[in-house]
Amino acid sequence: MSAYRALNDGSLPEFLGSLPQVKELLGGEPAGWTVEEVGDGNLNLVFIVRSPKTAVVVKQALPYVRLVGDSWPLPLSRSYYEHMALVEQAKHAPKLVPKVYHFDRNLALIVMEYLSPHIIMRKGLIRGIEYPLFASHIAEFMAQTLFNTSPLATTASDHKRRIWAFADNIELCKITEDLVFTDPYRIAKLNHWTSPDLDEIAAQFRRDEPLKAAVQRRKLQFMTSAEALIHGDLHTGSIMLTPTDTRVIDPEFAFVGPMGFDVGAVIGNLLLAFYSQDGHEARVYARSPYRHWILMQVEQVWRLFSKRFVELWDKSKSGDAYMPELFQDPDGALAFTTEKQRFMRNLFVDTISFAGIKMIRRILGLAHTEDLESIAKPAMRAKCETKALTLARRLVIDAERLTGISDVTSAARAIHASP
Amino acid sequence: MSAYRALNDGSLPEFLGSLPQVKELLGGEPAGWTVEEVGDGNLNLVFIVRSPKTAVVVKQALPYVRLVGDSWPLPLSRSYYEHMALVEQAKHAPKLVPKVYHFDRNLALIVMEYLSPHIIMRKGLIRGIEYPLFASHIAEFMAQTLFNTSPLATTASDHKRRIWAFADNIELCKITEDLVFTDPYRIAKLNHWTSPDLDEIAAQFRRDEPLKAAVQRRKLQFMTSAEALIHGDLHTGSIMLTPTDTRVIDPEFAFVGPMGFDVGAVIGNLLLAFYSQDGHEARVYARSPYRHWILMQVEQVWRLFSKRFVELWDKSKSGDAYMPELFQDPDGALAFTTEKQRFMRNLFVDTISFAGIKMIRRILGLAHTEDLESIAKPAMRAKCETKALTLARRLVIDAERLTGISDVTSAARAIHASP
Repeated sequence: MSAYRALNDGSLPEFLGSLPQVKELLGGEPAGWTVEEVGDGNLNLVFIVRSPKTAVVVKQALPYVRLVGDSWPLPLSRSYYEHMALVEQAKHAPKLVPKVYHFDRNLALIVMEYLSPHIIMRKGLIRGIEYPLFASHIAEFMAQTLFNTSPLATTASDHKRRIWAFADNIELCKITEDLVFTDPYRIAKLNHWTSPDLDEIAAQFRRDEPLKAAVQRRKLQFMTSAEALIHGDLHTGSIMLTPTDTRVIDPEFAFVGPMGFDVGAVIGNLLLAFYSQDGHEARVYARSPYRHWILMQVEQVWRLFSKRFVELWDKSKSGDAYMPELFQDPDGALAFTTEKQRFMRNLFVDTISFAGIKMIRRILGLAHTEDLESIAKPAMRAKCETKALTLARRLVIDAERLTGISDVTSAARAIHASP
Repeated sequence: MSAYRALNDGSLPEFLGSLPQVKELLGGEPAGWTVEEVGDGNLNLVFIVRSPKTAVVVKQALPYVRLVGDSWPLPLSRSYYEHMALVEQAKHAPKLVPKVYHFDRNLALIVMEYLSPHIIMRKGLIRGIEYPLFASHIAEFMAQTLFNTSPLATTASDHKRRIWAFADNIELCKITEDLVFTDPYRIAKLNHWTSPDLDEIAAQFRRDEPLKAAVQRRKLQFMTSAEALIHGDLHTGSIMLTPTDTRVIDPEFAFVGPMGFDVGAVIGNLLLAFYSQDGHEARVYARSPYRHWILMQVEQVWRLFSKRFVELWDKSKSGDAYMPELFQDPDGALAFTTEKQRFMRNLFVDTISFAGIKMIRRILGLAHTEDLESIAKPAMRAKCETKALTLARRLVIDAERLTGISDVTSAARAIHASP
């Protein structure tokens, strides 16, 4: 077991050369491998190590938040949780996560599949690329991982062990608790926004009492609802894809939490992409078809996810919750179907509310998204952001009054069309 | 550290004599102490050890379910969780739990305060004894322990550690999952009821699809809602009292679960006591004042609990959920007050639904209560039980439609008055 040290271009090939499986995969000798540090996330080192034959990705946690620096320490154990989550997700959605070749707990390092020609979805959305299989892939990923790590699919004992196994991923959860659920609603040093354009709306949000109450209700849910092993950070920067292949990466925020937090992350980030299109189109209306495509994805993600989730539930006989033997006759089957619809309705409300909360934090909090940040002109960016905030607030406040996903896309469209 | 062995009248004094603190407390020599085994619960050995000077209670877990026998093994670790829960509860409600003098993890044994002249509340209810301070005491116990072990009062980190610390109390939770939430709704070997009188209603409940769906929804909540450290078995057999003193014992089912499960246990068991009075009165109507007193306690328990819970919340500044700094101005204070009412409303619905579920399992499941079992004439017992089941079903099905606790007592009274 080696002690922790941050690896670099120089030390990494030698280390990988000491791992027989990785050495064989790359082929040849470490001296013939090249290393490129490509981490553009907020937390970690990410290297691509290339040999003449192939390539691998090496992700290593740093003992602090990369975005902020070593003034903000962060435990290396997040790499352990990321690895555990990748292994668990691979059981349920093997084609939708990167392969893991090696994990070193002391180095907080994962060697995994190099995905090519995949790009980070967020960058694809900025470029206006359509991904025809994305919605069905991400729906499959979420349905499989969320259903199968809940007591709808497993015993209560397994579920308690799962809760236990991830319960100490405390600091990563705290990042979410602080940056997503709290800081955007108070004066906080790390907050920033397009200023002065958004100064007034940021102040409004800080004194928007019904909004703050609703967000705090969701924060409590985030801290107490142990529904399933969630990815915990499932934005479009955690998705790499091609037109035919989709992979979910970076589950270091994983813990047993509310399912809607993952589904809401996908939908909220699609909606941010939708509102950012005005800032990326060559001329007004040029991206109208793409805007339409994004909203179709919002609808498809929810529809395909909920359909698939219920399909898995219909087929499952292994969960300690809602044991099928209790609902065997025709009346029972009907009651069970109604109950599943009720469950999905609650999950929809959770999803939409979390989606709105995730949008707000990306505009008024610490960590923003490239979709909006890459809009050069502040006035244009502020206009996009204001519309996104308007929808986001409505999603949080009105989640229970929205009858379905098309209410969300209608509202998104109407707010976009407003002056 | 000693290996596990079940202690008995012979071996117990010697063991206690080896514990300096206990020896000093009892005074004199072990040869002068008497041992009486008094365990009437379902799971454990309970001894009273008396010296000329005083007495202590020794509770030792057996490696199986006492009620069923060694065919049903049960981990000794429940004693560890009981001890941890007693320690935690004593922090928040020190006057409402027995003092702990010694804990031996290997022997799964707790030496604790001998409560005298306290009796088990259930026996007091059967005798028709009024306890004027019970409602305020139990309300205080529940408000203090539930509020203070939730993220309303603590950091998210502390809450995750609490979840982690109790997450492996799996087998005790499974008893609840099986015996409370599942078996009464299916043919199960251990079920029994007043037969043949209740055969038809038991069969009706097994095919009552809306009821089963509602109960399974609560079972899922029991498995996934990590709101606070709950007692987990807070029936009137877990309460010992006098007219002036109340103590909550036996928290071996403790884990971080839904708050309403504890409050519902108290209310459900009071309602069972209410319906059992017909079987205990010397002549018809003799216990009418006592029936009225019990229903007043149902109302008081909820009212005092919810009032106290909100008081604690109003004063607290330490919780990661709903940080007070977010709601400081007058509008914020108003929104926060509204949000607390909303929280309490949800907790009320949970409570009433769990109360109904706990009542049903005591009549159609494995473990019954002395309130009803001690009614000698089956026809009378069946009549009491049928009324209790009628109310219980309504509480589960209609919890969301009940506007307050007086709806519960009105329904209880109306059903009691029916032929």
